[in-house]
Amino acid sequence: MMLDRTSNRWRLDEGMIEALEIGSGILGTGGGGNPYVGKLRARQALREGYTMEIMPLTDLPDDAKVVSLGGIGAPLVSHERIKEGREGLRCVRALEERLGIKVDAIACEEIGGQNSMEPLITAAMAGLPVVDCDGMGRAFPEMQMTTYSIYGHRSTPSVMCDPHGNVVIFDHAISEVWHERMARACVVAQGGASTLASAPMSGEFVKQFAIPDSYTKAISLGNAVLGARKANRDPVEAVCANEGGKVVFRGKITDLKRQLAGGFVRGEAIIQGFEAYEGDEAAVHIQNEFLIFSRNGTVEVIVPDLIVILDADSGAAITTEMLRYGQRVAVLAIPCHPLLRSPEALEVVGPKGFGFKDVVFKPMSTEQEA
Amino acid sequence: MMLDRTSNRWRLDEGMIEALEIGSGILGTGGGGNPYVGKLRARQALREGYTMEIMPLTDLPDDAKVVSLGGIGAPLVSHERIKEGREGLRCVRALEERLGIKVDAIACEEIGGQNSMEPLITAAMAGLPVVDCDGMGRAFPEMQMTTYSIYGHRSTPSVMCDPHGNVVIFDHAISEVWHERMARACVVAQGGASTLASAPMSGEFVKQFAIPDSYTKAISLGNAVLGARKANRDPVEAVCANEGGKVVFRGKITDLKRQLAGGFVRGEAIIQGFEAYEGDEAAVHIQNEFLIFSRNGTVEVIVPDLIVILDADSGAAITTEMLRYGQRVAVLAIPCHPLLRSPEALEVVGPKGFGFKDVVFKPMSTEQEA
Repeated sequence: MMLDRTSNRWRLDEGMIEALEIGSGILGTGGGGNPYVGKLRARQALREGYTMEIMPLTDLPDDAKVVSLGGIGAPLVSHERIKEGREGLRCVRALEERLGIKVDAIACEEIGGQNSMEPLITAAMAGLPVVDCDGMGRAFPEMQMTTYSIYGHRSTPSVMCDPHGNVVIFDHAISEVWHERMARACVVAQGGASTLASAPMSGEFVKQFAIPDSYTKAISLGNAVLGARKANRDPVEAVCANEGGKVVFRGKITDLKRQLAGGFVRGEAIIQGFEAYEGDEAAVHIQNEFLIFSRNGTVEVIVPDLIVILDADSGAAITTEMLRYGQRVAVLAIPCHPLLRSPEALEVVGPKGFGFKDVVFKPMSTEQEA
Repeated sequence: MMLDRTSNRWRLDEGMIEALEIGSGILGTGGGGNPYVGKLRARQALREGYTMEIMPLTDLPDDAKVVSLGGIGAPLVSHERIKEGREGLRCVRALEERLGIKVDAIACEEIGGQNSMEPLITAAMAGLPVVDCDGMGRAFPEMQMTTYSIYGHRSTPSVMCDPHGNVVIFDHAISEVWHERMARACVVAQGGASTLASAPMSGEFVKQFAIPDSYTKAISLGNAVLGARKANRDPVEAVCANEGGKVVFRGKITDLKRQLAGGFVRGEAIIQGFEAYEGDEAAVHIQNEFLIFSRNGTVEVIVPDLIVILDADSGAAITTEMLRYGQRVAVLAIPCHPLLRSPEALEVVGPKGFGFKDVVFKPMSTEQEA
């Protein structure tokens, strides 16, 4: 592709990384990898002199070869074992060698959590721009759950690299779910946290099916929280205002089941209400991300709509691995991007895609109640 | 390489496949995949008009590109779910494409069990000869347990294909054990029985470090059993005479623990003695293959020496998945090939390599006792 060096690209600085940590943490809905660890790694790369450039989606030439990438595994592991650092770069190079091509730009697989930082770090090392988009508009636990896959991209051949130096190519998978299944088994063998780059997409495809402006929006969300904190306004309200979301519960975590199973963190958090929710009990189902929110046994917010758990005071997002007994939290619901609500998307990222057979997706009510 | 079409190669017919079934079953020491299923598949290929040619190891040019392959997974699965049939061919083609080479000949990964047939079927479809050798001289459960790996061959990039059509390339592994670990996790995700072809070896390397004449020997062993049956001689004795082995126990299986765990069949068989062994109890430890034989609590035969369980009457080899309560069996010990007894080999295929920390390998006594 022809990349216009006088274009609308913009560079990230440390302040933007700080805001992205907060914004991507909220959009992570509990998963996507710990954004604090991601921030430290991205900041380190900036301090080493690497440049991180974001390219507007609309600037992408139709024939550009765009590779999306991200961390794969259990967030719990990526939080406790820092990455070697060049996994993503090794993925891109191995993909280029396997296919005999040059990659033009990096896309984000999921904007939620540490996976917002992964493309930035890799693209910086490879001297490539990151396209301002992602495949989820949030975080999801499985690879077939991107708008890229949902709307027809076949993500193999893909390359998975671990911190030890192992390189695996998923050369052909008979379906996106088979790709996920094999990669998941392999990442567990590799220790539980690797990086995977998928087969290149055309710029034309990305412009049509990616969730647009993901970096711009995540950074603006982070800045809204920072601004509220500075002005002594409620950061929880700032998140709601910025995202068109609403508070659905406030309370204290009183029970927590959480286990590392099959490469995922799975479990449930029970929250006893306080303030307007006194006497109520809420439950949040977890598979890496928060999937279903129910109050007093009634399901109220359903994946792919976003369920976000924030520290009630600071407005800081709490990821699944950071949940603790006794935390005082606000639970928010944020409507997902329309690309995730189509019938074909709901087959994959609706409750059915997570094995909840009796739950039918209903878009969250946007009426403010509390 | 230059292949001499007037050379010492020989072709397999159905009778040889019949003998190979018996011989490879015995050398499988319980594993390597059910040889009966393998025979049916090989015979079918012959009946479809494919040619199976064996090439003496000594005829191999130094610069030949030799690819060894075999089934990977739990024998139990490959016994219950027949292969699609062209897994091996897909492996060879994907390896050729990945490396930009033409493969000259196929080698056998393990001569034991169904894995003796895998190279024949694949080579027939690819129009290539099979070299008269293998990497184990028996069967072992893990991939790093070949003389190829032990004596320095790096088996990546390798290709693994499943019956569904999925293709995975293990492009680089930091060690042979890491290769095994990742492939094992992936084969479980693929359903438990796939085919894997390793990175090409040079003819020079194969001539030095492969176990020689494996097909010739396995077929001759099978013919010895067939001959004994025909002449109403004891087939068990015929096996001992042919292989320099001896009977170490005769009895009835009275207890059997067997489970499919982590892509392996693991367990233990308890045998109550009869005839000369009346009053004795023997135990055989299993990880796909029979690894340790002990009598009355004393270890007597240790991997890599071969522990073989035969039907006491017919002399037919009993694989781990065919073990049943009440079977009347003879247990044989057969000395392994000297290439498996070097210090570097014993690190990998001795008891330590299987997690038996308190057992030190001692070559089996060749004294006849019963």
